[in-house]
Amino acid sequence: MRRALRLAAKAEGRTSPNPMVGALIVKAGRVIAEDYHRRAGEPHAEALALEAAGKRAGGATLYVSLEPCCHTEKKTPPCTREIIRSGIKKVVIAMKDPNPKVAGRGIDELQAAGIEVKSGVLEKEALRLNEAYIKYITEKQPFVILKVAMTLDGKIATPTGESKWITGEKSRLMVHKLRSRADAVLTAIGTVMADDPELTSRIKRGRNPVRIVIDPELEIPVNAKILKTPPETIIVTKADSIKAKNIEKTGIKLIKYEANLELKRLMRKLGEMGMMSVLIEGGSSLAAHALDEGIVDKVMFFIAPKIIGGRDSYPAVGGSMFRLLGDAYRVRDLRVKRIGEDFLLEGYIEK
Amino acid sequence: MRRALRLAAKAEGRTSPNPMVGALIVKAGRVIAEDYHRRAGEPHAEALALEAAGKRAGGATLYVSLEPCCHTEKKTPPCTREIIRSGIKKVVIAMKDPNPKVAGRGIDELQAAGIEVKSGVLEKEALRLNEAYIKYITEKQPFVILKVAMTLDGKIATPTGESKWITGEKSRLMVHKLRSRADAVLTAIGTVMADDPELTSRIKRGRNPVRIVIDPELEIPVNAKILKTPPETIIVTKADSIKAKNIEKTGIKLIKYEANLELKRLMRKLGEMGMMSVLIEGGSSLAAHALDEGIVDKVMFFIAPKIIGGRDSYPAVGGSMFRLLGDAYRVRDLRVKRIGEDFLLEGYIEK
Repeated sequence: MRRALRLAAKAEGRTSPNPMVGALIVKAGRVIAEDYHRRAGEPHAEALALEAAGKRAGGATLYVSLEPCCHTEKKTPPCTREIIRSGIKKVVIAMKDPNPKVAGRGIDELQAAGIEVKSGVLEKEALRLNEAYIKYITEKQPFVILKVAMTLDGKIATPTGESKWITGEKSRLMVHKLRSRADAVLTAIGTVMADDPELTSRIKRGRNPVRIVIDPELEIPVNAKILKTPPETIIVTKADSIKAKNIEKTGIKLIKYEANLELKRLMRKLGEMGMMSVLIEGGSSLAAHALDEGIVDKVMFFIAPKIIGGRDSYPAVGGSMFRLLGDAYRVRDLRVKRIGEDFLLEGYIEK
Repeated sequence: MRRALRLAAKAEGRTSPNPMVGALIVKAGRVIAEDYHRRAGEPHAEALALEAAGKRAGGATLYVSLEPCCHTEKKTPPCTREIIRSGIKKVVIAMKDPNPKVAGRGIDELQAAGIEVKSGVLEKEALRLNEAYIKYITEKQPFVILKVAMTLDGKIATPTGESKWITGEKSRLMVHKLRSRADAVLTAIGTVMADDPELTSRIKRGRNPVRIVIDPELEIPVNAKILKTPPETIIVTKADSIKAKNIEKTGIKLIKYEANLELKRLMRKLGEMGMMSVLIEGGSSLAAHALDEGIVDKVMFFIAPKIIGGRDSYPAVGGSMFRLLGDAYRVRDLRVKRIGEDFLLEGYIEK
């Protein structure tokens, strides 16, 4: 199963809005076929492995990192049917498919056909691998990661706005990987004005996410890099000016809102647009708003071995609001990783 | 040698202004005697082990975590003389004694007497164990640790001053251990006013450090816990009021200064008073001043899995000054430890 999960992870950032899935067919203690789901619309992992195994699948065991699908509302045929037809004797599954169209019915179908099914093998790892898919398929909203790059004393910029570079090369490389895995990167006009970032994934085989800029008054300079570099950029604004119309003409999409922006509503909208995961890379205020509106699922704090001090330096999470200690946002499963000279502390916001 | 270092560490916080030292005598592959230096004025580790070994020391090997002393300006006789007299054949040493009165001369004496000497075994570990002693004996100033207890977003208190408790029980227990190891705890009037702390070491066999409060205008309430609980409390102030005289009468010591307080000068003074280590437990401003004046040797940031946000929350390091990123205080050898639900990030300020 560990191998199935590793195979699944090969497609990281490419399967959205589908999950990552890996599958192996084992007979007499030997792997006779293995494969993984490459991208939405393409065949499922089990189907590919079964096809590769052909007739040899008879009497074999299938290891698959997600419960096989049983529904027909998509381009590919249901995997349960193909498994039953292949003569597979036993199916080992890491986790049930949270998709309400499956949710245990795949397992039921296999068992009804006389196939032995074991579920929950390396379930924790499988749940983590597909955390974005799970949120998306059950809530129809993207899984949101808040990324912060800060000094040891919790600052993301000096009072003058200087923030390049707080973290080291390896952390920045990892951020490019995170962007490559995300469907969208969300930022705010303050960051665009201060840094003029591209927010692309500048790594080999990197996939650029859609960039979303929150810009209430449409202050974005028309020559901002984010407007000039592919792929798509979306501006969330309440402005309805000539500038808005001109920007729309250049192919930039605008999402309009009135009065106050509700990030919750924006997330629902992004979910409707098929976005499974969003990476927040903004400043102190955006981080505060995102937490305040309860849209953040995971936090990733990159901490550099530097101290800059200053009560007017920008904190990791700012805003006019704060939480009392008893009411603080709690981060569960906080883990630490060394990333070059920095440390990454990551965990999940308790809801 | 690992055992010698473990023996040495048993006296943590009790040997000041002496180093911690452990010693073993090994003969034919067996430990025939071992001991450690218990506190200043009492016998050295080597002397205790040699005494326990008696005549059996002839032809044996001595493992000692610090170069044996050779000078006579103290209560105990020089260890080199006793080692030579004992018939020890070989001496293995973790690190040279940085005390200018020794500094290699101990090794020279042993070699001149025909004893084989090997130095530098587990040197890195030995240097870390006695980092406070090394600073003190070479610079006549205390080794200064800046301790911070903060949320994941770098805050030490809400805008209303609430800071109890940010970190978990295990972190707090560790802070009590740190206090027990320090000669003094340094804080500022702001912390006393906000928290009314005792700054004692409330653990079994804990040793209470001297408490030093920076209080320019002598605002400290006469019923502050820090004035009521033993041991000694020192107030650093420029006030020369009747209140000052009354406080002095109660046995509280005052260190007076004029115009601006220089922490560097205060550290020199504490060094002259025989203080080998100081733990800073103050607020945003004291942390900023201490870093700004270059008195901090080591930082220990306890990070809780909580986020409180708020641009007006108190940052780990505040102050009106800040450093540009290229000029940031750099923390070298940054290490991480899990302390219950929290993480401790600790390292050394590059000078």
